[in-house]
Amino acid sequence: MSHFQYNIHHQDPATAARRGVFTTPHGRVQTPGFMPVGTQATVKGLTIDQVAATGAEMILGNTYHLALRPGHETVRRLGGLHGMTLWQGPILTDSGGFQIFSLEGIREVSEQQATFRSHIDGAIIQLTPEHSIEIQESLGSDVAMVLDHVVALPAEPDAVVDAMERSIRWAKRCLNAATRDDQARFAIVQGGLDAKLRAECATELSSLAFEGFAIGGLSVGEPPEEMYRITAATCPHLPTDKPRYLMGVGTPIDLLENIARGIDLFDCVMPTRNGRNAMAFTDRGQIKIRNAVHREDTRPLDPDCHCVACRHSRGYLRHLFIAKEMLGPILLSIHNLTYYQRIMAEARAAIELGRFSEYVAKKKKGWLSQPTTNAETRG
Amino acid sequence: MSHFQYNIHHQDPATAARRGVFTTPHGRVQTPGFMPVGTQATVKGLTIDQVAATGAEMILGNTYHLALRPGHETVRRLGGLHGMTLWQGPILTDSGGFQIFSLEGIREVSEQQATFRSHIDGAIIQLTPEHSIEIQESLGSDVAMVLDHVVALPAEPDAVVDAMERSIRWAKRCLNAATRDDQARFAIVQGGLDAKLRAECATELSSLAFEGFAIGGLSVGEPPEEMYRITAATCPHLPTDKPRYLMGVGTPIDLLENIARGIDLFDCVMPTRNGRNAMAFTDRGQIKIRNAVHREDTRPLDPDCHCVACRHSRGYLRHLFIAKEMLGPILLSIHNLTYYQRIMAEARAAIELGRFSEYVAKKKKGWLSQPTTNAETRG
Repeated sequence: MSHFQYNIHHQDPATAARRGVFTTPHGRVQTPGFMPVGTQATVKGLTIDQVAATGAEMILGNTYHLALRPGHETVRRLGGLHGMTLWQGPILTDSGGFQIFSLEGIREVSEQQATFRSHIDGAIIQLTPEHSIEIQESLGSDVAMVLDHVVALPAEPDAVVDAMERSIRWAKRCLNAATRDDQARFAIVQGGLDAKLRAECATELSSLAFEGFAIGGLSVGEPPEEMYRITAATCPHLPTDKPRYLMGVGTPIDLLENIARGIDLFDCVMPTRNGRNAMAFTDRGQIKIRNAVHREDTRPLDPDCHCVACRHSRGYLRHLFIAKEMLGPILLSIHNLTYYQRIMAEARAAIELGRFSEYVAKKKKGWLSQPTTNAETRG
Repeated sequence: MSHFQYNIHHQDPATAARRGVFTTPHGRVQTPGFMPVGTQATVKGLTIDQVAATGAEMILGNTYHLALRPGHETVRRLGGLHGMTLWQGPILTDSGGFQIFSLEGIREVSEQQATFRSHIDGAIIQLTPEHSIEIQESLGSDVAMVLDHVVALPAEPDAVVDAMERSIRWAKRCLNAATRDDQARFAIVQGGLDAKLRAECATELSSLAFEGFAIGGLSVGEPPEEMYRITAATCPHLPTDKPRYLMGVGTPIDLLENIARGIDLFDCVMPTRNGRNAMAFTDRGQIKIRNAVHREDTRPLDPDCHCVACRHSRGYLRHLFIAKEMLGPILLSIHNLTYYQRIMAEARAAIELGRFSEYVAKKKKGWLSQPTTNAETRG
C-alpha cells in the first residue's frame, strides 16, 4: 500500500471546491489547506511549536536555498528537514525552478539543465531535474516537486510553449530519477496564460505516475482574474483523485477563488512577509498597525482570533513596530498565519455544508469593506 | 498591611548568601532571583509566554526608553506595563539614571535635575527625581527605582562624593514624591569604588523608608574583583530584612560571587544580548554557535537543558545564524535566559542545603574548563 493517499469527502454542489484528506508518512493534511513557507528550514520568526499552534498541518521548504546553505548533505546528516526543524507533520519541498527564475540569477536553460548564479556568493551552479530530486531526497520531504522551467510573463508564445514542453520532459526525468517510496512527487503544470496550453500540459502530466499536481508560473504579476481563469481551465484536466496545489498563492481572496475552481493546497509568504511589514489580515481587510490611530487603542487586532498577538492591544503592537522590536514582526506573523488557517478551516466547514459560494461572498464583503477607521487607509 | 514583604528563609552558614521570598502585588519572587530585561516593554525576541517558560518570576522595564517611546501617558492608557506586556508577575522599572549616563546623551546634572538629549530625536529633556517617580507610577511597575546620579569611573574623588550625596538627596525627593502604596521604592547606593563612601551611603539610605536597596554604578568596566569588593563592603550596611538588588550584573560567575556577598536580585541584558550574538551559556562555558565545528553536530547545546532551543541540534542552530534567520537569536535568547534561571534555582537549593560555597566552586570549575572542542574558542 502506498505511503500516500488522497480522499475527497465532500464536493461543493455549486463550485468545483472539494473537501479532502491527504495522507502522508508524517500524517494527514485536511484540504483545502495552506502551507506556511519555511524557506531556510524555519518559518521566519516562529518556533516550531508556534507554527503548529497556528493550526498549520504541512509546511514548505525551499530546495534552492537549502541546497546553497547549509547544503543538502548537511541537512541529511542533521536528520533531514524533520530532524532539523522538529516539525512533526508533512513537509513539501519545491524544486528550485521558481527560485532560479525569481531571483534573476538565471544564466541559461538548456535541455539538460538550468545554469544560474548563487545569490549568496555568485558561484555558477548547474541544476538538472535528477539533481533536484537527489537534493529533495536528502532533505527528506514528504512531497518533492519536479524541476520546471518557469518563464517571465508576458513572454513570446514560442517561449511559453518551449518552456511548457521542457517542463514535461523534465517532469518525466524527475520521476525516473526518484528512489524513495516514502516521498511523493508532484508534477507542475506550465503554459503561461494560454488556457489551451495549460490543458494540454495538465492532460499529458496526468498520464504519468505522480501523487499530486501543481499549477506553477502564476502569481507572477498577472491580474487575479487571469490567474483564476487559468486555474479554472486547468483543474478539469487533472485527476480528481489527486491533490491539486497552486504554488505561491496568495491573498485571502485568491485562496477562496481558487478553492472554488478546484484547488486543494496553497503556499505563500504573504502572511509572514506582510506580518513582518506591520500589516495584519482581518475579516475587515488589512490593518496597518504602524498608523498613529492605533497608538492608544486597547482593542485587539481581531476580537475573534485566539492567537497570542490578539491577547495584546493594538497600541502595544504598534509600539513594538515603532520601537523596532523583534516581537512586533513575530506577533503579526503568528496572527496572519493563524488567520490564514482560520480561513481554510472555515472554507472546509462551508464545503462540508454545501455552502461554499455563500461563505466566499460573505468573506469578500468583509475584506472589501471600509476599514474600521479612515486613518487605517493612510500610509 | 503592606503590599510588600521580604522574608529570609535560609542563611548560608559559610557565606552571606540568603534564600528569601519577596512578595509584591503581582506575586512572589524567589530569591536569589534574576530579572530578564524588557527595555522597551518586551524581552527582546520572546513572547511573554516564552519569558514565563524560562522560569523568570520578575522582569524589568526601562523608564528612560518607555518615557521617550511610546511615552508614559500612553503606557498608562494601555493599562500600564502589565496591561501592555501581559506579564502577570511583578515588574521593576529603573529610574532613567543609568540610561542617561550610559547613552552619553548627558548634558548637565544640577541639584534640581538631569538634562539630556533624547537618543531618538535629539530633543532636550529634563528629568527630576519627582518626574522619574511620576513616570514610574504611570508605568505601573511593582518596584520603582529612585533617580540617581551615576558617574563614569574612574572619576575624581570629589565628583564621586558629590554624585553620591546628590543621589541621597534625590532618593529622599523620590520618597516624598511617591503616591502609590502598591508600588515599592528601592534606594540606590552610589559611591564609586570607595568602600567607605559606599558604607556611608548605605547607612544613610537604610534609615529611610525604602522597601528595598540597590547597588548602582557597578558593572561599568571595573574588574570583577573590584565589583565584588564593593558589594561585600556595602551589604553589611543594608537592612537584613529588605531585598538587595545589584543593578546590571552580570556573568554567571558574577551572579554567584555577589550572592555569596549578600545580593538577592539581579538584572542584566547579557543572556539576551549574547544570545542574539550567537553565544550560548552552558556549564562548560560559552559556546559560539557560528563556529564551523558545529556545522553537522547533532547534539543539543546543553543535554541537561529543557528549553526549546535544546530540543534542536547545534547544527540547526548554527544554520539559523549563518542564514541570518530570526529564529537563531530567538532560540539562543530563550536558552540563555533559561540557563540563568537554572543557575538561580540551583543557587537557591544550595543555600537551603547550606552548601553554597561548594556549589559555587563546582560551577566555576565547569565555566573555567576547556570548552568541549578546541575549535569552540576560535572567533
